[in-house]
Amino acid sequence: MKTSRRSNVDPFIVMDVMEAARAAEDAGRHVIHMEVGQPSTGAPANARAKLAAAMEAGPLGYTVALGLPELRRAIAGLYADWYGVSVDPSRVVVTSGSSGAFILAFTALFDAGGKVALGEPGYPSYRQILSALDIEPVGIQSTPENRLQPAPAQIPDDVDGLIVASPGNPSGTMLDRAAMAALIETCAAKGISFISDEIYHGVHYDTRAVTALEISDDVYVINSFSKYFSMTGWRVGWMIVPEDHVRVVERLAQNLFICPPHAAQIAALGALEARDACEAHIEVYAQNRALMMQELPKIGFDKIAPPDGAFYIYADVSDLTQDSRAFCAQILDEVGVAVTPGLDFDPVRGAQTMRFSYARSTADIREGLSRLHAFMSNRTKG
Amino acid sequence: MKTSRRSNVDPFIVMDVMEAARAAEDAGRHVIHMEVGQPSTGAPANARAKLAAAMEAGPLGYTVALGLPELRRAIAGLYADWYGVSVDPSRVVVTSGSSGAFILAFTALFDAGGKVALGEPGYPSYRQILSALDIEPVGIQSTPENRLQPAPAQIPDDVDGLIVASPGNPSGTMLDRAAMAALIETCAAKGISFISDEIYHGVHYDTRAVTALEISDDVYVINSFSKYFSMTGWRVGWMIVPEDHVRVVERLAQNLFICPPHAAQIAALGALEARDACEAHIEVYAQNRALMMQELPKIGFDKIAPPDGAFYIYADVSDLTQDSRAFCAQILDEVGVAVTPGLDFDPVRGAQTMRFSYARSTADIREGLSRLHAFMSNRTKG
Repeated sequence: MKTSRRSNVDPFIVMDVMEAARAAEDAGRHVIHMEVGQPSTGAPANARAKLAAAMEAGPLGYTVALGLPELRRAIAGLYADWYGVSVDPSRVVVTSGSSGAFILAFTALFDAGGKVALGEPGYPSYRQILSALDIEPVGIQSTPENRLQPAPAQIPDDVDGLIVASPGNPSGTMLDRAAMAALIETCAAKGISFISDEIYHGVHYDTRAVTALEISDDVYVINSFSKYFSMTGWRVGWMIVPEDHVRVVERLAQNLFICPPHAAQIAALGALEARDACEAHIEVYAQNRALMMQELPKIGFDKIAPPDGAFYIYADVSDLTQDSRAFCAQILDEVGVAVTPGLDFDPVRGAQTMRFSYARSTADIREGLSRLHAFMSNRTKG
Repeated sequence: MKTSRRSNVDPFIVMDVMEAARAAEDAGRHVIHMEVGQPSTGAPANARAKLAAAMEAGPLGYTVALGLPELRRAIAGLYADWYGVSVDPSRVVVTSGSSGAFILAFTALFDAGGKVALGEPGYPSYRQILSALDIEPVGIQSTPENRLQPAPAQIPDDVDGLIVASPGNPSGTMLDRAAMAALIETCAAKGISFISDEIYHGVHYDTRAVTALEISDDVYVINSFSKYFSMTGWRVGWMIVPEDHVRVVERLAQNLFICPPHAAQIAALGALEARDACEAHIEVYAQNRALMMQELPKIGFDKIAPPDGAFYIYADVSDLTQDSRAFCAQILDEVGVAVTPGLDFDPVRGAQTMRFSYARSTADIREGLSRLHAFMSNRTKG
């Protein structure tokens, strides 16, 4: 049997890094993980307790396709709490992670042959999911002046959609309210569907992130329990869709997914009641971020985007290397720190950038910085 | 914002039945559920215990995209146990339910504009998932002489794929080894990709079902923990793919799903060790089936396909009605039994067919049959 053309998606280079790190560990080396995009913490205790009880109380059969009504209401409540925005629970679609939300959003909005714009650097799977659905990704090269976010003037006329992420991955930079509004208004004027990936909301440091729903109801907003709620492996996320899209998305969800994982939905309900535990994680990230921001420039990584949220720092290393993949491999090899080359995030400039994750413990971050310091010192001497 | 053309998938008519049944129950009526396609039992105790322990032992973060290595090995072992077939664990892809497997299989194998044949009657979501991926479903009207399964002579030359399900939903009929081999050989000769949906394997009564892997390694086989292992809401299934497709499917899975739900993977490991509990469920279905086969013809539903497996009986009711939807609504209204009209499964002949599910307790089935008897008696009198 032969495979399809659209299945020919790019490999994840970060997977090679993770594999190399694992191989180093298998060989007995100690590795500091600054490559991973997930918390080292698990689901909040309350989430686990709620599921443990529910498992014994009855069978966890299929839920309705849009998710448990109680969970949809609780998620709607989060918008009131976090942003003072009123969201009707009927517009909340519980999904199999933000991954499931992307599949639903892209099939609901775009036909094969359609075009969707996205900022570079950005989350690599946007491109690959679009390609797998026969939709053409159109990269927008964002600039440091625009905080590595797309600007209204950069949006092509001939695209069907725009995806933005604020805070962004790998940059951690945010769109403020004016910048978000300008993008949404430009898209509305051009008849371009607007998708806001808000998966890192809640993980911010100075000011809170702006949701696209503060500007307009005619947008798709995607979020997840993976990051702020520390539930990556559970595969539960959500989407807020315009009211007149709910039925279309519901039919797609019935057929494409039947329902999101029931157990994860129960755990998510518990996580929503465990906000103190989540905030405690943010305090750790804040400490880590402060350390990174203080030490990285001293070490020699001084061209970094200001990380408003998420747990990443993206660095321009063009004065250090023209081959970020080899550079990152060298760092792992010499000092045992796993970091991600920018190639996954930006096919154009990624050979001169890299991403540091600071989602692990502060002790790990401190040790990682110390090793990076050693690497850069050796390099200067060499 | 406007929705895509491909998002315009058909509604599930069974959802209307379920909604009507729920409304009747809300109004205080007692309803016997013969419409649902899931066991009333939950995950085996061993599955729940394993997850309860794992949740407290560490964070359930992302797993690798193809699933926990231990689970992939255990699933490969099932093929040795059940069929005496040797499957390399590297060919096992753990998925987010069989739903996730369909998305991966269809994107791996077919491009937009491709055509995929499927037997009618059949599982309605095949059609809708294909349509959502811009692939054209091509219905094959199967016949009672071929046990409501597609026959080699019916496979069009111009399709890119064929999906078969044995035991089938809604029919419960199986392809024997010769029939399965004839379909696989015909597809191979025509260069058509072959997908075998084996989600009801393990749920059989006289002889066991044949897996496509007994015939060929150049096929996609899809299965799930939902039915035999009684884990519908957990969303964990698997796929066996040809060796030279593993990398392609892995890249798609990394991007489209990241990983299947970690918690469900742990529970699935526990379920694989709890085969006695699963076999106890099959004994209940066998009793229910015997009751159904004995009573339905007496009541007046005598044109039924022989259900070799699964927990459904599909009836030709063309001498009773030309409008199965109205007929099923009347049954619910008059005697409080929810049954499914055939329209979801067969767009051509479904107005003259219906599906009975016998996945619930034997007491429920007995009561349902008694009510169906009353309905048909009243009808004759009226």
